[in-house]
Amino acid sequence: MRKLRIQASINAPGRDACEKPSWALSAGQPPAVSQQPGTVYAHVGQSFASRAYDVLIVGAGRMGAALAWQLRQRAPHLSLLLAEEGGLPNEEGATILASGVWHSDVPDEQRERAERTRALLGERLQPCGVLTLSEQGGVPPSVPYPASLADAAVLPGLRLDPRGGVYSPASVTLDAGQQAVRLGADLMLNVRCELRGGGQVALHRLSVTNTHQVVVDHTVTVTAAQVVIASGAAGPHLIENGLGQPTRHRQAYRQLPRLNVPSGPDSPVVRACGFVLRPHSGGYVVTPPILHPDPWGYQPVGGRLAGVPVGLRREVVDSLLPHLEALPALASEALVVGRSSADIPGAWLALPEGGWPRWDRLDEQHVLLLGGPHADLTGLAVAEELAEALAQG
Amino acid sequence: MRKLRIQASINAPGRDACEKPSWALSAGQPPAVSQQPGTVYAHVGQSFASRAYDVLIVGAGRMGAALAWQLRQRAPHLSLLLAEEGGLPNEEGATILASGVWHSDVPDEQRERAERTRALLGERLQPCGVLTLSEQGGVPPSVPYPASLADAAVLPGLRLDPRGGVYSPASVTLDAGQQAVRLGADLMLNVRCELRGGGQVALHRLSVTNTHQVVVDHTVTVTAAQVVIASGAAGPHLIENGLGQPTRHRQAYRQLPRLNVPSGPDSPVVRACGFVLRPHSGGYVVTPPILHPDPWGYQPVGGRLAGVPVGLRREVVDSLLPHLEALPALASEALVVGRSSADIPGAWLALPEGGWPRWDRLDEQHVLLLGGPHADLTGLAVAEELAEALAQG
Repeated sequence: MRKLRIQASINAPGRDACEKPSWALSAGQPPAVSQQPGTVYAHVGQSFASRAYDVLIVGAGRMGAALAWQLRQRAPHLSLLLAEEGGLPNEEGATILASGVWHSDVPDEQRERAERTRALLGERLQPCGVLTLSEQGGVPPSVPYPASLADAAVLPGLRLDPRGGVYSPASVTLDAGQQAVRLGADLMLNVRCELRGGGQVALHRLSVTNTHQVVVDHTVTVTAAQVVIASGAAGPHLIENGLGQPTRHRQAYRQLPRLNVPSGPDSPVVRACGFVLRPHSGGYVVTPPILHPDPWGYQPVGGRLAGVPVGLRREVVDSLLPHLEALPALASEALVVGRSSADIPGAWLALPEGGWPRWDRLDEQHVLLLGGPHADLTGLAVAEELAEALAQG
Repeated sequence: MRKLRIQASINAPGRDACEKPSWALSAGQPPAVSQQPGTVYAHVGQSFASRAYDVLIVGAGRMGAALAWQLRQRAPHLSLLLAEEGGLPNEEGATILASGVWHSDVPDEQRERAERTRALLGERLQPCGVLTLSEQGGVPPSVPYPASLADAAVLPGLRLDPRGGVYSPASVTLDAGQQAVRLGADLMLNVRCELRGGGQVALHRLSVTNTHQVVVDHTVTVTAAQVVIASGAAGPHLIENGLGQPTRHRQAYRQLPRLNVPSGPDSPVVRACGFVLRPHSGGYVVTPPILHPDPWGYQPVGGRLAGVPVGLRREVVDSLLPHLEALPALASEALVVGRSSADIPGAWLALPEGGWPRWDRLDEQHVLLLGGPHADLTGLAVAEELAEALAQG
């Protein structure tokens, strides 16, 4: 059962302790200082008088929080409620685990959004270089080959993206949410939203019993002129259940195992064979490729390696197997495989149709906003595009 | 829990009652009449003295049974044991539910195998014509458009494959297994095989308690010069657990809902939008496309349609949604959606790498034989190829 962490995450530091504590997203607009800060409803003890909002954002992950912040900047006249089932961001969502790697290897039609996202990240992006290894090409003499991770005989090709870098999506989300509140957005945590259609949303405020069960304490219904569903993998289900609109978006349970190969402050991110290896706390976080969506109703389970139960999903093991020669570190004991799936950090990830972050108007009152596997690259720009569209009415 | 159906299936009629009761696969070779029939070990009460075999086939589905029969014809000097966890074929396997549609719309590299499979089916293939509907092209005046199933305004294109036809994979399997036994193969039902490596196989003979639990009654170990793993979706797992060889084959849980649109003896099979609609018992059996493999550990669950729980998997619903206009019958109440997944016939299906039936030598003693989604088209020919290879030693 999900555990409530009331108010804990709102003041929690980002996932990366080395990141700067204070920061402003560098969008360039002057802050709307004339606004009163909004109200934070963190737990059911804080009474909430139902009222109408201009905009209600369901989900304070990376997409929802960025949208809230952008919208407060662009349209301070629009009243805004940001509602989130967990903390900021959700402790079990995809944002908190996202690897936060930006690089410029994107298709042409996404280039502008990727650059805009980089600009929005501003100084939160720590330049570190992103190395892409491949089967063809040679190693430029100026770039050291990451021999502890990959085999240069199999993957001699090496491209350095000097503009690449890393950031903490969880910190960016926390800051965006806090900025939005400072600029007048209301924020409600620990609330499960149910779409009732026509801009009506039931807010089921959650509480935790002394036997650690999460229960609905009470329900308030609010009406909003615009409801943005930014709930990640859960978004399409929310829409289908609440509005009767099936979508073609999918989801997958992503695991991010740790690789205990030493990394330092100057270690680059390495991309190879569909994997991304991001330096993190003296080791690496491995982001495996997603081979296929997971079916509805799937409960993540660990797999087996040579007959022994491990926490890594079978599908992650499958994605590793063809590349063990190219990436020998992933075949070594340095890879933390765990003993059950609870040992490996993981979260449900939306797989938007087309693969890239997007927003879609569903009807006059509802918009779907989805990040997914490439939210690191273009997510902020897509959230900004939607803010622009909503601000213009 | 799986229920044992001891000896029931060995004398059971095929799935299609209209099929001819007596039949010989039309391979053209004279039967090896000099052989003594083999022994059938249907239940644990029949004692089995462990002995060495030349060939042991794990799984008496469509692939394993066809191989056994072909091998007895080609190499009567090779002693043979066909071992199966359920009946002949397994009541819960993919064979018993396979739609049994043959058509000639195959890629060039599979054409020869498809034609050979057609020849091997002989008179078991009931010619019925296979109509392929598409978005382009017109309707030849000689062929009636199946207006009860599809909308000619959306799918005007119509191609008739006059050489196409239907058969019952379950009956073909039953007959192949029986022929193999007549020609000297031993057959053991209700036995779970475990690979021990080096041609050793543990035969866990299964029994059912009076509380309907399937338990291992006793275990016998046999040695075979050649072990063929023909266990469908379970095959790759068996190999990985027993031989430590991971493979790149996958699996999916396929559901085949019924469509209550009237069909008659002259109704053609209809292929459209990735679906196959096979006339069956006055209606149709729908074979949906497989959108993606299912993850390891997935337990099939029903989905929802407009908020109501149904037995159809969410993924089947997803595959239907884009084509409701083209195939309006699938959007009507004629489609049996059930209330839980138990209501919809379904089985785990192997998804061989490359998509087509194949065999692969794993080591000196072990061969993997896989059918999968296209076993209707080329399965018998692939089994024959393997029989040829094994007969030649």
